[in-house]
Amino acid sequence: MTISIQSPLKHLHHLLYTEMNQVDTLILESLFSQVSVIEDVGKYLVQGGGKRIRPLLTLASHQLFNPDSVNSQGGCGVIHLGAAVELIHTATLLHDDVVDASVMRRGQQTANEVWGNSSSVLVGDFLFSRAFQLMVKTKHLDVLDSLSNAAAKIAEGEVLQLTSSYSIDLSVETYLDIITSKTAALFAAACEVGGLIAGMDMSLRHHLYQFGHNLGMVFQIVDDFLDYCSNSSDLGKRQGDDFFEGKVTLPVIIACQENINSEFWTSQFAKTVRTETDLQEAVQLLEGSCILRKCREIAKSFEEKALDHLDKLPKSPIWHDLKDLISYSLNRRS
Amino acid sequence: MTISIQSPLKHLHHLLYTEMNQVDTLILESLFSQVSVIEDVGKYLVQGGGKRIRPLLTLASHQLFNPDSVNSQGGCGVIHLGAAVELIHTATLLHDDVVDASVMRRGQQTANEVWGNSSSVLVGDFLFSRAFQLMVKTKHLDVLDSLSNAAAKIAEGEVLQLTSSYSIDLSVETYLDIITSKTAALFAAACEVGGLIAGMDMSLRHHLYQFGHNLGMVFQIVDDFLDYCSNSSDLGKRQGDDFFEGKVTLPVIIACQENINSEFWTSQFAKTVRTETDLQEAVQLLEGSCILRKCREIAKSFEEKALDHLDKLPKSPIWHDLKDLISYSLNRRS
Repeated sequence: MTISIQSPLKHLHHLLYTEMNQVDTLILESLFSQVSVIEDVGKYLVQGGGKRIRPLLTLASHQLFNPDSVNSQGGCGVIHLGAAVELIHTATLLHDDVVDASVMRRGQQTANEVWGNSSSVLVGDFLFSRAFQLMVKTKHLDVLDSLSNAAAKIAEGEVLQLTSSYSIDLSVETYLDIITSKTAALFAAACEVGGLIAGMDMSLRHHLYQFGHNLGMVFQIVDDFLDYCSNSSDLGKRQGDDFFEGKVTLPVIIACQENINSEFWTSQFAKTVRTETDLQEAVQLLEGSCILRKCREIAKSFEEKALDHLDKLPKSPIWHDLKDLISYSLNRRS
Repeated sequence: MTISIQSPLKHLHHLLYTEMNQVDTLILESLFSQVSVIEDVGKYLVQGGGKRIRPLLTLASHQLFNPDSVNSQGGCGVIHLGAAVELIHTATLLHDDVVDASVMRRGQQTANEVWGNSSSVLVGDFLFSRAFQLMVKTKHLDVLDSLSNAAAKIAEGEVLQLTSSYSIDLSVETYLDIITSKTAALFAAACEVGGLIAGMDMSLRHHLYQFGHNLGMVFQIVDDFLDYCSNSSDLGKRQGDDFFEGKVTLPVIIACQENINSEFWTSQFAKTVRTETDLQEAVQLLEGSCILRKCREIAKSFEEKALDHLDKLPKSPIWHDLKDLISYSLNRRS
């Protein structure tokens, strides 16, 4: 597995190296099928990079409550859960790329470009089902409840995002609803199930969930404004992806709301196709305005909430890495 | 809900009228979402007819082991399971229609025709997640195991079918593998979970599962040859759907294997588009040959296995209805 990461994500990968390898092995085993295209598509995606942030959160949350060893009580279960959250995420990426007609992801062609939309839809369904099989193997009903709720929420968020494409008058509230569902719900559940399987004190469940939720919000808001930053790189997607796909995200919403070059944005999203020149103009307009700073302020408000909730959780050795991860998520450039 | 059915399916619907209404109510409640297109697509499908055979099997299997009342022990659970199996089935139909680029189903436009492929993919994901949420509410781990395995098997079967499209040299064995996964697995699980939630003697689990599996095999083989029968009607799809979509099913496989008009079939499936005239020629060739009789013989072999396994199950009042259902599945004309 080749991962392009920066500290503290790198540090977490290092700390949880053995467990992450077990997660990877289990994911690859889960791709086993008599139908070769399932294995081909699955391996292409799983081995195609990605930060693996969700299984890292599951493993780290587990260690927060069970710092001695991931392989003691619940050890097997947490590896299953790490694999399950990554498979759910991978399944949603497959379907997203079909819906968005995306051609590139993480510097390589999307699966739908290589194998076609039909394979992507069906292999996505397979990965999703495999995730549920892994979850069921933990025999932990609270975990099943958490992840099945997250899965429904993700799908709801994706549909809401789809119906909001090209809607230049999207409100900040609706945008936050979309990213709560499509991103933060799985971050939150990934953390929550790690704690649940470690047998955490249930009075802390809310704080663990909210830590994950707010971290997810920071992560997605930053992802969305990096899409318009000329100095961002290695984002795991092309710069301008959202712009080209007609996805109205926070920078565009704030621009229109505050009437900053709103004619430009309205005309851009009224078109069915936007060019590279359009993107360069968009980037210049944003960088010359206060909009990216305002986006960052909104992300910062979620960073603060994530820190508040983390502060209620046990100060196990890994706690500081999770704290660093929050700041990293806000300040990253890629 | 309007259902176009024949006895004994009608009789089962009559017997389980109250419980089926509860299943329908729960399905409609499950479609509730703040995102209106989810409700629109969901209701369009759920209220668009269909035989509801899978939840009927769940309810009937439950009554087999708990004949007094569906509302006694496990009553709430079985309604959840009936709704879950129908939602899984509906989700697969949504994705199937995208994969097959189908335009009509059950006499109405497909959801992908009305709302587009993207909505169908994402609403399918939502329904699938809702099904898991309902299953988790039963808190019955064997049930979760059974249905999550079925879901993975369905997806595997769909991919295998996709990679076999236009493969005129498909073997009977691979064809049976495909329908085992895409159809019989959910029939089998629908029965099995009904028995599990009723607290059946676990030594009978195998027979209940195999009854459902073999019934599903009969059902799908008959569906596939009715696609080529000029006197079939109300099939819930247009005559010739498989032919137009390039799906190589049992009649075509047997024709090629036995070298009966195999040049015709080879040339037809070498084309990307087949016309109504092509279909009429196909129907005439099949009706003038022994092929449909041979398909029926294969279906009959599964009918006999279904009867053998049913024979091992308790002779509760509903047992005879399940027996009649097997014969009906073989002999139906629509």
